[in-house]
Amino acid sequence: MIGLIRVLTTANAEVLHEHGRLILEMYAVPVKSDCIPEQPLGIYNDETEQLANPKIVALGKHMEQDGCKVLVVSCAADPAVELLRRNVSVPVIGAGSAASYMARMIGKPVGVMGITDTVPAVMLDILGDLFIRYIRPEGVTNTTDLLTPAGREQAIAAAKTLMEQGIEVIVFACTGFSTIGLAGILRKELNIPVIDAVEAEGLIASNLYRQLRGE
Amino acid sequence: MIGLIRVLTTANAEVLHEHGRLILEMYAVPVKSDCIPEQPLGIYNDETEQLANPKIVALGKHMEQDGCKVLVVSCAADPAVELLRRNVSVPVIGAGSAASYMARMIGKPVGVMGITDTVPAVMLDILGDLFIRYIRPEGVTNTTDLLTPAGREQAIAAAKTLMEQGIEVIVFACTGFSTIGLAGILRKELNIPVIDAVEAEGLIASNLYRQLRGE
Repeated sequence: MIGLIRVLTTANAEVLHEHGRLILEMYAVPVKSDCIPEQPLGIYNDETEQLANPKIVALGKHMEQDGCKVLVVSCAADPAVELLRRNVSVPVIGAGSAASYMARMIGKPVGVMGITDTVPAVMLDILGDLFIRYIRPEGVTNTTDLLTPAGREQAIAAAKTLMEQGIEVIVFACTGFSTIGLAGILRKELNIPVIDAVEAEGLIASNLYRQLRGE
Repeated sequence: MIGLIRVLTTANAEVLHEHGRLILEMYAVPVKSDCIPEQPLGIYNDETEQLANPKIVALGKHMEQDGCKVLVVSCAADPAVELLRRNVSVPVIGAGSAASYMARMIGKPVGVMGITDTVPAVMLDILGDLFIRYIRPEGVTNTTDLLTPAGREQAIAAAKTLMEQGIEVIVFACTGFSTIGLAGILRKELNIPVIDAVEAEGLIASNLYRQLRGE
């Protein structure tokens, strides 16, 4: 199966499995999710990223030993993705790099949407000259803010602001947007490609999984 | 539907539709294929590429007017892909760039396999530091050569040569390899990811098509 790493600690099974469940529903591949220990707030600065890196590697190595054929680090910042690749022999996919390379396949100007202050470095590096602007929906600091009618309107308004500046593709820099189905809302309202980070990691991971299974 | 451009002129319906048929079978999306006029030998040098470019743009524009939601230039050299993007508003996917970005999502050293003398520039540019070596199976100058048992052995031998040099992903620089099912043979023999150019363009094109259809 696919091993999916959540980079925040949770005992809530629904939260733990939400990305894996989406990938199973979209691509009909088995996903085993697990999370790193002792970081209930996840990764939010350099210090917490340094703290998480060896835990991500340890969990990925364990998942490989457990039989996972493809690993996914399900976070738009791609934490420890390069490091994990040096420690396992199975393919390792990061949400941020998968989404950004998918945008590059389209080759049009990109607007990035997220809820943090800045775009993950890995995404800026990959998007390069296609990157136009980053935006955070007004008043939104948590994905649950987007579940209200007002939050939804703010997300659509933010996407429209990006489009006014010439972007033709939207990329999410937040895996929380996947859980609330924001991509579907924006696609319906605006009729432009929206690259959802969990959809992108799942698209490539499920393709590799099927290959390596001999399907 | 998806509009798929073949960059060689053919009156043979089987040849014309072979990439579209593969994409339909793999991803269950409708594909309309058409080819550029008056180039039965396709693109094989700078002069024939210059000759083909305006024909690709004209065909792509016609396909967009005809209702195609996504266009695919089904050639590993990505001819006229950037030019076509400036002339239509729908997404344009190139086989070479889609396959190369897909390899970058995996992030491991890449070996490229093809039947021409050199790797398309667009693929080298994208693969960058991940590119290790290009190889052409010995004695193979035409994809039909690979349909013989000897040709098949040569392709497997070429892949093994790449792996001995440390590559962990194989990317095809020839869409003819898709038609003969070479990826499946190599995956079975060698158990490493093989990025097939038609599979890669179809993976992204079908995803975008479904998005823009509101699925």
